[in-house]
Amino acid sequence: MPSDIEIAQESDIKPISDVAAELGLLPEEIEFFGPYKAKVKLEVLNRLADVPDGKYIDVTAITPTPLGEGKTTTTVGLSQALGAHLGYKVITAIRQPSQGPTFGIKGGAAGGGYSQVIPMEDFNLHLTGDIHAITAAHNLVAAAIDVRMLHESQATDEQMFERLMPKNKHGKRSFGRGLVGRLKRLGIDKTDPDDLTPEERRKLCRLDIDPATITWRRVLDTSDRFLRGVTVGRGPNETGHERETGFDITVASEIMAVLALTTGLADMRERFGKIVIGLDKAGNAVSCDDLGVAGAMTVLMRDAIKPNLMQTLEGTPVFVHAGPFANIAHGNSSILADKIGLKLADFVVTESGFGADMGMEKFFDIKCRYSGLVPNVVVLVATVRALKMHGGGPKVVAGKPLDTAYIQENLELLRAGMPNLLHHIQSARKFGIPVVVAVNSFATDTEAELELIRKMSIEEGGAVDAVVSRHWEFGGQGAVDLAKAVVKASELPSQFQFLYPLEWPIKQKIETIAREIYGADGVDYSELAEQRIEEYTRLGFDKLPMCMAKTHLSLSHDATLKGVPKGFRIPIRDVRASVGAGFIYPLLGEMSTMPGLPTRPAFYDVDLDLETGRVTGLF
Amino acid sequence: MPSDIEIAQESDIKPISDVAAELGLLPEEIEFFGPYKAKVKLEVLNRLADVPDGKYIDVTAITPTPLGEGKTTTTVGLSQALGAHLGYKVITAIRQPSQGPTFGIKGGAAGGGYSQVIPMEDFNLHLTGDIHAITAAHNLVAAAIDVRMLHESQATDEQMFERLMPKNKHGKRSFGRGLVGRLKRLGIDKTDPDDLTPEERRKLCRLDIDPATITWRRVLDTSDRFLRGVTVGRGPNETGHERETGFDITVASEIMAVLALTTGLADMRERFGKIVIGLDKAGNAVSCDDLGVAGAMTVLMRDAIKPNLMQTLEGTPVFVHAGPFANIAHGNSSILADKIGLKLADFVVTESGFGADMGMEKFFDIKCRYSGLVPNVVVLVATVRALKMHGGGPKVVAGKPLDTAYIQENLELLRAGMPNLLHHIQSARKFGIPVVVAVNSFATDTEAELELIRKMSIEEGGAVDAVVSRHWEFGGQGAVDLAKAVVKASELPSQFQFLYPLEWPIKQKIETIAREIYGADGVDYSELAEQRIEEYTRLGFDKLPMCMAKTHLSLSHDATLKGVPKGFRIPIRDVRASVGAGFIYPLLGEMSTMPGLPTRPAFYDVDLDLETGRVTGLF
Repeated sequence: MPSDIEIAQESDIKPISDVAAELGLLPEEIEFFGPYKAKVKLEVLNRLADVPDGKYIDVTAITPTPLGEGKTTTTVGLSQALGAHLGYKVITAIRQPSQGPTFGIKGGAAGGGYSQVIPMEDFNLHLTGDIHAITAAHNLVAAAIDVRMLHESQATDEQMFERLMPKNKHGKRSFGRGLVGRLKRLGIDKTDPDDLTPEERRKLCRLDIDPATITWRRVLDTSDRFLRGVTVGRGPNETGHERETGFDITVASEIMAVLALTTGLADMRERFGKIVIGLDKAGNAVSCDDLGVAGAMTVLMRDAIKPNLMQTLEGTPVFVHAGPFANIAHGNSSILADKIGLKLADFVVTESGFGADMGMEKFFDIKCRYSGLVPNVVVLVATVRALKMHGGGPKVVAGKPLDTAYIQENLELLRAGMPNLLHHIQSARKFGIPVVVAVNSFATDTEAELELIRKMSIEEGGAVDAVVSRHWEFGGQGAVDLAKAVVKASELPSQFQFLYPLEWPIKQKIETIAREIYGADGVDYSELAEQRIEEYTRLGFDKLPMCMAKTHLSLSHDATLKGVPKGFRIPIRDVRASVGAGFIYPLLGEMSTMPGLPTRPAFYDVDLDLETGRVTGLF
Repeated sequence: MPSDIEIAQESDIKPISDVAAELGLLPEEIEFFGPYKAKVKLEVLNRLADVPDGKYIDVTAITPTPLGEGKTTTTVGLSQALGAHLGYKVITAIRQPSQGPTFGIKGGAAGGGYSQVIPMEDFNLHLTGDIHAITAAHNLVAAAIDVRMLHESQATDEQMFERLMPKNKHGKRSFGRGLVGRLKRLGIDKTDPDDLTPEERRKLCRLDIDPATITWRRVLDTSDRFLRGVTVGRGPNETGHERETGFDITVASEIMAVLALTTGLADMRERFGKIVIGLDKAGNAVSCDDLGVAGAMTVLMRDAIKPNLMQTLEGTPVFVHAGPFANIAHGNSSILADKIGLKLADFVVTESGFGADMGMEKFFDIKCRYSGLVPNVVVLVATVRALKMHGGGPKVVAGKPLDTAYIQENLELLRAGMPNLLHHIQSARKFGIPVVVAVNSFATDTEAELELIRKMSIEEGGAVDAVVSRHWEFGGQGAVDLAKAVVKASELPSQFQFLYPLEWPIKQKIETIAREIYGADGVDYSELAEQRIEEYTRLGFDKLPMCMAKTHLSLSHDATLKGVPKGFRIPIRDVRASVGAGFIYPLLGEMSTMPGLPTRPAFYDVDLDLETGRVTGLF
């Protein structure tokens, strides 16, 4: 079989204007970015406000091997089957990948084989600049924090007052837009700065940020491990103000999580304003509104908020929008793309990051909670390979050849691994959603193996169906049976419910997820975690949903525990808050938020064919 | 008069497809980025190869006050006059501004009043992502450098060999694309890695970079002074490999200079490969080709190389492409935009950064040398205000009210300042190009003052004409007389010549510019500068043109010396090389390559009107 990039570059591709027209988008509702990408304006939601929503399908997976089990490929293949073979109007809604790892060790994120989003080079690099906009907005906040601390350290209250509210040429002062947020927070309702008392001036002008509490780092969309920890302020004019901090990869930014969870421009503006960057020396939260920077962030993100339209290899429409981390964030594409999609299509097929214990739980309890959308079907992707691993098969390591256990029939190993799949089916059912198991089939799988998965999924797991799918090799045609099963399941009534109510205390929410979804016996908190929970409760952030930052390689917090681990307790090392995005994220281990490059990075193979202008060597 | 953003947002704007069609671009030659921006494909150069070039006009200025003398506004106003009032086909070619300072203290860079490029929000923010692409490409190189040093420090020669050229599944090794450049440099012409001698393996696999010689920093398009100096590698897994470095603003990247000077994809690929990031421990240059990263850089920049099409307030076409620094780089927009423009239009009006001693000299000796294009006219922008300053007027400070000397008639002060203008006219004439002086007129200028400038420019300076222009207030209509003078001057024969030949030694080139253009008595070199000149000569970089990194606020190296300073010698503090871009840049002082934010940053005023979606407070 040809490589992914060969398949993608040889495919027939439609002008994106045709894809948009087929979807029923009006010409004035789209903005082109080259011939094969477009942004869709949010105004379409007003035009279609009265149209009933289509069916909402979430694609998730069992606990994967480090190789991944083909979730995006299945999402795309299923969509191709629904749209190009069964004649439904369908929209695929997936995340935009981070560009940095593309040049390191990671493969593309556009699906694979004959189930891909194209052009894959555009999908994997730059796209329409949304991630670049996040880099700009995020680092503007970081620059504002450090420079504000420097300026406050060098000025009296009166000097700060003079500089922040200078007299205009008529000798008049005004608060200006940048101070509106802070005035409101402080409960000062005066309109003339000259009426402020000295104490009010001090409060308004001096943020008094405690450097030790700053959680806002800087970001770059480059895999640069030397930026994980940096000392900033080493220039001669910043001497005495050096500070230890670091860079995360841009998709780990809270701004990315906001982009994914926002429901519109006004909501995004409000969320940016609420982002907490640290505390002041009295222990109060300091927000982007306090810094006066949330308006500029919104301006930088005003195009990024519009979903990006692309297409599959079979010409069905794809929304690519937002790509938050699946551990420290919720790992799901944007609410706005799904909302628009559900107005335009019979089916929206979206994907949740990592396994069902991570991405799906957050899809329901965070994304659907903020969107108000009701999902209809969960498609749970499983592979013979991963199930054998859960049954006790040898370790699967990326870049190493697979053990023969994985490429020869072994029903015993497979049966021993099935509980992982059954557990995830049960988890989905706890939310009241019917489950269709999609067995992403490889050439080495045997009929008996595939049949075993099917039978046990339905009979023991309670899946409404379980279907073998061969979309990688055959495109949409290979997923027609899966698509038919999904259509059927979508006609069942949805009895969707959240796992926990927001009013519960932080610990009760954490423990419910740990017990119900991970199968843990309980939760242990570090001293730091206890302190944070107390602090967030004091600051009023305890009514947010939980976004567990856990490994995806095990149902437990320990990546080496496969199958369905029993008799373990979840340790909470730290608890952090993304107040603007709207969740608390308890940390169950070390989460790397900045990848590195290997000795032989993927960029070694990448070049431009100067004759054809084509990208070569990208996967 | 309304503010710039009000004028811009209230203007009638044409779909960019109309602007492109009026220019004679074919639909398949443009790529849309929203309704008002498009990229122009380089293929248009093939189609129009046999069309004769239009006239090539460079807009430059006298030595400015810190407020700037309206060079971009004049460039746009002149274009509007030529295109919208005199009926010529005209293209304005200007630089893309850096986004970072937009949120600090800087005003917009889209012109002003009734001579602007629109939409000004798009012009000033993101545009089509070219600067973001540079950030990505630049920082990929930085990540590659640090991680390569780390990996080399932890591996034997054999391990490096194994990792860089692993056996494939057939047990066969290959060099792969990433090692091609280095093989060539080392003069190894073997095709099978297993045939390499141990010494060749070591040479090929070990770059042996000397950390003390690394000149490649990181970049961000954010004004973040705390990044001027940083220690990287402070994470626990990089302990022992910490390194002092820093960030520049993205437009200071050598990649930006390459973008501005390249003549096509193959040339850009080659220049990226030649970029020198530092030396190895034996004193050899280490290039991006040695790192194997130049192909990926080219892929990241494959869209950025296409010029961006926008429009003026009067609907004439504008190319916005590349924005290199005007001190450490050459400060001119791209060669490719000018080349395409000259095929499509009767006139290309382009702008050089800073005053004529800086931007214009580099336009001729660097940009025109690499492009092979022959300029026809220099438009030299002067203001009564700046000339009075040169005549000994009080200090002009941004943000402070102007002294009355500048707003009342004062012919004596003005006459005393005229030598600065006359000097710049003479400089342009040394290159064989006719000069038209454009007096950018303010409401407070008197007729007698304007007439004095006109008369002396022609009679004493030898300008072919000198015209008062009021394009800020009246748009193109206000610049019709200027446009007519430019048309007339463009009909004179061009006797264009460079100031120096490339074969001269580095010092002779520097001294020629210092004496002929700055009026210096001579040049003094620091010990460091002497060392660098010796080193660059040894490495074969001495045949490059010189790009002087000097203040723009004086003809000399000392910003406080106004008028035409005499009896001074130019000190060369350091000499650096942008080998990929293709110039040596001697440093005549400290050049800040990363701006900071003031206590009350411009972002304080910026927000999005949530009703209309319009940007507010941006200038």
